[in-house]
Amino acid sequence: MRRMPGRNLRHNSGPSRAFDLQKFLATRSEAVNRALDHFLPAATVRPATIHKSMRYSLFAGGKRMRPALCLAAAAACGGREAEAMPLACAVECIHTYSLIHDDLPAMDDDDFRRGKLTNHKVFGEGIAVLAGDALLTQAFEIAARCKGWPRYPHREIILELASASGSLQLIAGQVADLEAEGKKISARHLRYIHERKTSALLCCSVRLGGMSANCPAAQLKALTDFGYHVGLAFQVIDDILDVTQTSETLGKTAGKDTRAQKATYPSLIGLEKSRKIAADLTTRAFSSLRAFRGKADALEALAGFLLKRDR
Amino acid sequence: MRRMPGRNLRHNSGPSRAFDLQKFLATRSEAVNRALDHFLPAATVRPATIHKSMRYSLFAGGKRMRPALCLAAAAACGGREAEAMPLACAVECIHTYSLIHDDLPAMDDDDFRRGKLTNHKVFGEGIAVLAGDALLTQAFEIAARCKGWPRYPHREIILELASASGSLQLIAGQVADLEAEGKKISARHLRYIHERKTSALLCCSVRLGGMSANCPAAQLKALTDFGYHVGLAFQVIDDILDVTQTSETLGKTAGKDTRAQKATYPSLIGLEKSRKIAADLTTRAFSSLRAFRGKADALEALAGFLLKRDR
Repeated sequence: MRRMPGRNLRHNSGPSRAFDLQKFLATRSEAVNRALDHFLPAATVRPATIHKSMRYSLFAGGKRMRPALCLAAAAACGGREAEAMPLACAVECIHTYSLIHDDLPAMDDDDFRRGKLTNHKVFGEGIAVLAGDALLTQAFEIAARCKGWPRYPHREIILELASASGSLQLIAGQVADLEAEGKKISARHLRYIHERKTSALLCCSVRLGGMSANCPAAQLKALTDFGYHVGLAFQVIDDILDVTQTSETLGKTAGKDTRAQKATYPSLIGLEKSRKIAADLTTRAFSSLRAFRGKADALEALAGFLLKRDR
Repeated sequence: MRRMPGRNLRHNSGPSRAFDLQKFLATRSEAVNRALDHFLPAATVRPATIHKSMRYSLFAGGKRMRPALCLAAAAACGGREAEAMPLACAVECIHTYSLIHDDLPAMDDDDFRRGKLTNHKVFGEGIAVLAGDALLTQAFEIAARCKGWPRYPHREIILELASASGSLQLIAGQVADLEAEGKKISARHLRYIHERKTSALLCCSVRLGGMSANCPAAQLKALTDFGYHVGLAFQVIDDILDVTQTSETLGKTAGKDTRAQKATYPSLIGLEKSRKIAADLTTRAFSSLRAFRGKADALEALAGFLLKRDR
């Protein structure tokens, strides 16, 4: 059969074809919002304060990068996005809880997040602590509602989520970050922090996506490498943006890290070297996608986006 | 075969036999401590601060009532205590996290708990928030390590734990408690608070114990009734003790509720009526144990102990 000229030109023109990332992000973010709205108690459910507070931060305009990565990983492994959805939502609940607690006066003491007042500035510290607790708990409830897969039954899914969020990973990163404030630390220690504060949950997001497709071990390994490197790149870029952007563009207080004497890549090794490291990490992320033989266009586009973003 | 005189006299002399509760509590509490020590990262594991902080509160001399109830429920349903152990530990982690966050300045602002400085007084507020988060996360990790049972696979176990600890139960109780401070509330609203703040997790403890024995629905229903009534009684007694005992006996700041203008049973309906209610609730708890036809002696003894305790 003769190939029709121009047919599938936009969507099937080899490795250099243009993947419509904006459309992907817009449709997936909408789907994730609908699913989160479905999983969470309504804002009117008693006690209304806690559900309003949970929803305030959950729907404060987050980019849904982690859910997008989870859904894209599921697609790369030939899975159905609908089956990955509870896991994508669970990861976003974990991410949001960590931001709420991170913004507390006892931690980073931030008044703005994504251009809006932080949770404790609106609801008070007590409710903000509880809203974080509730989102963390909700994450496990939502994850438990997933289908479960032959290679990855519910037990494995919950262990994956708990270990990425626990005291050896996500929380270890927060603790190390808190303890490093105002101290001179090594680039090696900074990487330890970034691996836990950011890579752990990004890595978990793509791994859970793959698991929801019942992916074989080799694909899970490739996703792990991808998530690890994208995660590190993401955090290095966050550090860079904090130095180079204004608060207005960023939607949060810029220059905060410098003022809080936080160790960051730019402060430790300079801006240009930091940019080089971010680019290198992304290259390594891209090469882990080779295992998917061109089926990981969404993941590839997301990684590119994370490096090129300006806020 | 002729029954030997005196044989099994102590342990098998009918419904009025003396169950050795002190021994039960001592042995189980020791076993729970060993299991918790096994499940939690060592205090030296990096970052050491968070593991020291988690362990500080977890091993601060808690009575292990929830684990004891969980193990006793498992025994009442003919289950093996070893199989109930991860669930008993998970419930204790949830309980401890809720105490750490509850004691924070933004919440109850308490300096002492069980006769020791509260977590944030020792480790600072930031670490206390994170230690609570870590224990909550750890609870799900430990629960996921359970065996799983035909009637109650991992999915059901996680949903049980998440729903009892979530924004409609345990956290709802904390929120309602926080919001009721300094306000005049009805006895009905106070019961709403107690049901969530205390009954939810006690109920979950005995239900999980039953589940670990793969108990039939009727036994689960009996355990639910038992947990609900014991939980309410427990909280009413806590309120009573806060009024009647000194800080020294209690191991925490006594009279705190009154000073914080917290709604309590004694403040709403008086001390004598409160005592009557606690006794009534315990009677109802006892009657739900009839379903176990004399096999629930540990649960029965625990319920008695909860009513008779003086601190």
